[in-house]
Amino acid sequence: MQFTAAQIAALINAKVEGNPDAAISDIARIEEGRKEALSFVANPKYEHYLYETKAGIIIINETLVLERPIDATLLRVPDAYAAFAALLEKYNEVMAMGNVKKGIEQPSFIDATAQLGNDVYVGAFAYLGRNVKIGNNVKIFPHAYVGDNVVIDDDSQINAGVKIYHQCKLGKRVIVHAGTVIGADGFGFAPQGDGKYKKVPQLGNVVIEDDVEIGANTTIDRATIGSTFIRKGVKLDNLIQVAHNVEIGEGTVIASQTGISGSVKIGKRCMIGGQVGFAGHISIADGTKIGAQSGMLKPVVKEDTEYWGSPAFDFKAHLKSQVIFRNLPDLTQRIKQLEEKLNAVLVKGS
Amino acid sequence: MQFTAAQIAALINAKVEGNPDAAISDIARIEEGRKEALSFVANPKYEHYLYETKAGIIIINETLVLERPIDATLLRVPDAYAAFAALLEKYNEVMAMGNVKKGIEQPSFIDATAQLGNDVYVGAFAYLGRNVKIGNNVKIFPHAYVGDNVVIDDDSQINAGVKIYHQCKLGKRVIVHAGTVIGADGFGFAPQGDGKYKKVPQLGNVVIEDDVEIGANTTIDRATIGSTFIRKGVKLDNLIQVAHNVEIGEGTVIASQTGISGSVKIGKRCMIGGQVGFAGHISIADGTKIGAQSGMLKPVVKEDTEYWGSPAFDFKAHLKSQVIFRNLPDLTQRIKQLEEKLNAVLVKGS
Amino acid sequence: MQFTAAQIAALINAKVEGNPDAAISDIARIEEGRKEALSFVANPKYEHYLYETKAGIIIINETLVLERPIDATLLRVPDAYAAFAALLEKYNEVMAMGNVKKGIEQPSFIDATAQLGNDVYVGAFAYLGRNVKIGNNVKIFPHAYVGDNVVIDDDSQINAGVKIYHQCKLGKRVIVHAGTVIGADGFGFAPQGDGKYKKVPQLGNVVIEDDVEIGANTTIDRATIGSTFIRKGVKLDNLIQVAHNVEIGEGTVIASQTGISGSVKIGKRCMIGGQVGFAGHISIADGTKIGAQSGMLKPVVKEDTEYWGSPAFDFKAHLKSQVIFRNLPDLTQRIKQLEEKLNAVLVKGS
Repeated sequence: MQFTAAQIAALINAKVEGNPDAAISDIARIEEGRKEALSFVANPKYEHYLYETKAGIIIINETLVLERPIDATLLRVPDAYAAFAALLEKYNEVMAMGNVKKGIEQPSFIDATAQLGNDVYVGAFAYLGRNVKIGNNVKIFPHAYVGDNVVIDDDSQINAGVKIYHQCKLGKRVIVHAGTVIGADGFGFAPQGDGKYKKVPQLGNVVIEDDVEIGANTTIDRATIGSTFIRKGVKLDNLIQVAHNVEIGEGTVIASQTGISGSVKIGKRCMIGGQVGFAGHISIADGTKIGAQSGMLKPVVKEDTEYWGSPAFDFKAHLKSQVIFRNLPDLTQRIKQLEEKLNAVLVKGS
Repeated sequence: MQFTAAQIAALINAKVEGNPDAAISDIARIEEGRKEALSFVANPKYEHYLYETKAGIIIINETLVLERPIDATLLRVPDAYAAFAALLEKYNEVMAMGNVKKGIEQPSFIDATAQLGNDVYVGAFAYLGRNVKIGNNVKIFPHAYVGDNVVIDDDSQINAGVKIYHQCKLGKRVIVHAGTVIGADGFGFAPQGDGKYKKVPQLGNVVIEDDVEIGANTTIDRATIGSTFIRKGVKLDNLIQVAHNVEIGEGTVIASQTGISGSVKIGKRCMIGGQVGFAGHISIADGTKIGAQSGMLKPVVKEDTEYWGSPAFDFKAHLKSQVIFRNLPDLTQRIKQLEEKLNAVLVKGS
Repeated sequence: MQFTAAQIAALINAKVEGNPDAAISDIARIEEGRKEALSFVANPKYEHYLYETKAGIIIINETLVLERPIDATLLRVPDAYAAFAALLEKYNEVMAMGNVKKGIEQPSFIDATAQLGNDVYVGAFAYLGRNVKIGNNVKIFPHAYVGDNVVIDDDSQINAGVKIYHQCKLGKRVIVHAGTVIGADGFGFAPQGDGKYKKVPQLGNVVIEDDVEIGANTTIDRATIGSTFIRKGVKLDNLIQVAHNVEIGEGTVIASQTGISGSVKIGKRCMIGGQVGFAGHISIADGTKIGAQSGMLKPVVKEDTEYWGSPAFDFKAHLKSQVIFRNLPDLTQRIKQLEEKLNAVLVKGS
């Protein structure tokens, strides 16, 4: 299937610069562009590829100033990345046609008490326990385990091998990637004094609200009592640990391998890097940004601040300390020279 | 079902303060307490909720001194957390009645040579290989994989999708949460000189002793030769890495996302925070406490010490260095001033 | 089965020191050696066991100088570890005989359009989607999920519960351990300005070349467009995160729990420790060595260098700064003394 620059421009509201009849039949990364491919440049780091790529049509920001002429037809938009993403989505829809999973594959295990909505996909070897409620248009891929009394609302997608323990609730349009475990027991043990521990029963559940996406092999523990909450629109990457009774606020985004200890409350609109750790029982204000590998030991009270380091403190202050850390040998040398000079003065003066 | 304060006090050996006939039918977190709910306060950080909560009955430590009178009926015990945990367990048992998994669901795969004890649960799509031995009252949830010659002793619980490779051995009352992998090959490769590596066959197994609990999506590799040992009563959280030939001593507790390299030997009663890393082939003495995100590069010989940092050293010494790290810009400034003042002295003195 | 020192020496080209007729029937770690067992010492840290072990035959490096005589028969080779690994492999082959998985277990799900090579093993509950192509002698263990259009080439081994999303390609002799997820969606979301995010469709795939081994519960995301590449001979440990559009160069080895952000390009022959993090869009030169828990924020341009720290810089420079970090309280004390002395000089001089 071919599309012309003019057709694509109409789809994404772009201004055409160059030949509106240029046609493409594929998409490619800018550095791998071919004549018949559409590409995009949003990140200034990749602008130099504009002058090297063979891509036939390129989406760019309307503010971008060219250093020299380019063969490709350009489509200028306010936000090249968003426009390209929108286009990918349309492309995805077209490609997915006739390829959509539907119906109940066999063998699968669906308890007699489970309720299924319309247009549901249940893959082979999927397991739906007692009183499970599955909304309309939900996709449950092979090897997914949906425990007793779990509710999954409309248009959600549970990928292969996801494990959801009993009593958990998932909202609409939730996507969970393969291997993720939702609702395993929180890590709670009461020391018994004899060096042994007694398991604290974990009686709560996990509540995942609408429009959440969760990556692969992530773990979200059930609450001891009450619920672990993943609020609307949260995006979690792969291999993240969310302990019991945590709450992650609306629209917060967390990168891979971050670990959140029990009863932590993270605000809305936070952006959290990879491999960050949170100590238990702290609250993080809305809009907090946290650099990768940080260790958050204390609450963050003020909104929209930036943290970094382990233990973490103000982002810019941490950057300053880091620079000096690299120069510690110099600093030590300067102190040694001061000591020598001062001793010389003192000896001379005595 | 309703319980009075007097009934609960009898169950947990508490002293009643207030109305012994106050009745509850539910449990709740202290901050979400309602008249008909029982709650508890153990952590001093949560004491202020005592004066705000609507919970009808609250378990507290006998040593807690109230700042002002409280409406709720109080149950005083030596250890509020332990008492509440014990109560949750009784509650859990009552709630679980009539809800217990039993029998063999179909389709499941049980090799003709596998031996099953009494009162076993085998979920649909569970796989039991050749010569597998399953003890009495063991629960194997759906999608669990139990490789050839694996032994699982009485009263253990293998949750959905757990993968146990051939030859591994699990003791009594072991709980393994969903997605955890036991007995995958250790990471062993012999460099061949031409830039390529030759796989070292991993011929050992994993031995998990009684009363161990392992979280979700954790990985415990088999030994190259011999066994990787998880000793009695060890508690491992989610997403932990345990490499080949590691030994974790009795009663040690390890938080999420910690990684333990090959042939490390961790002592008894250790408490290890999240995201800690251990270099290969080191021994850690009994009773060692290690702060989150630490990097353990050297053996710990003395028992009952505390470590922190990456690389880790004495906990308190690390705390001091951290404080100065934050103030490095000040320190640099002081050195600069010293240099200026001293130069002035030298110029003047010359 | 028994083997003599002379027989083993012939297999691994060793020089016999001691009784060539000494016979063993088992292998053991040096510290657990018994008369009838073969063992080895390669790491100098373990040399002291030579004088304590009861092992009947020991493989050692030809350069090793004994401190005192040993009862065991010694087999001297240029590289004791490599020789032992080669021997284990032969042992493994012998032991595995008659124990090899073959054929199609039932129930399994093999789409009518899937193509299987010769001598394939497909375990019970394995799922092979549309147009899947499986080469000769491939082993697909129970609960593995192989999505539509996936290709797996000859002699590869897909362990229990591995999930491979549609369109991904695996080469020859690839080993993937249990629970690993290949081809889940990359973590790509376009901010919409209203605090919400729009999912960027992930249309690419993952390409894994020949002789790659991947540990348990690792995650490798598909490319947004194009491919995420794991090149020939790469070895990845457990619980590693590989984001969309990453490329890992030939022969590179990465330890557990390391996380690699989107579009990172790692060179050939790199050795990367555990729990390392890589910021997005950076390139790492061939032969780079990176210490555990490092944070790589910037590209590495020069080949064969060593990095450490978070953020990482030159390995040796980092070591120096670390040593001073431990002594920061001393350094502060020295500055304080300088200030006091200098003030005394200034007061006196005024």
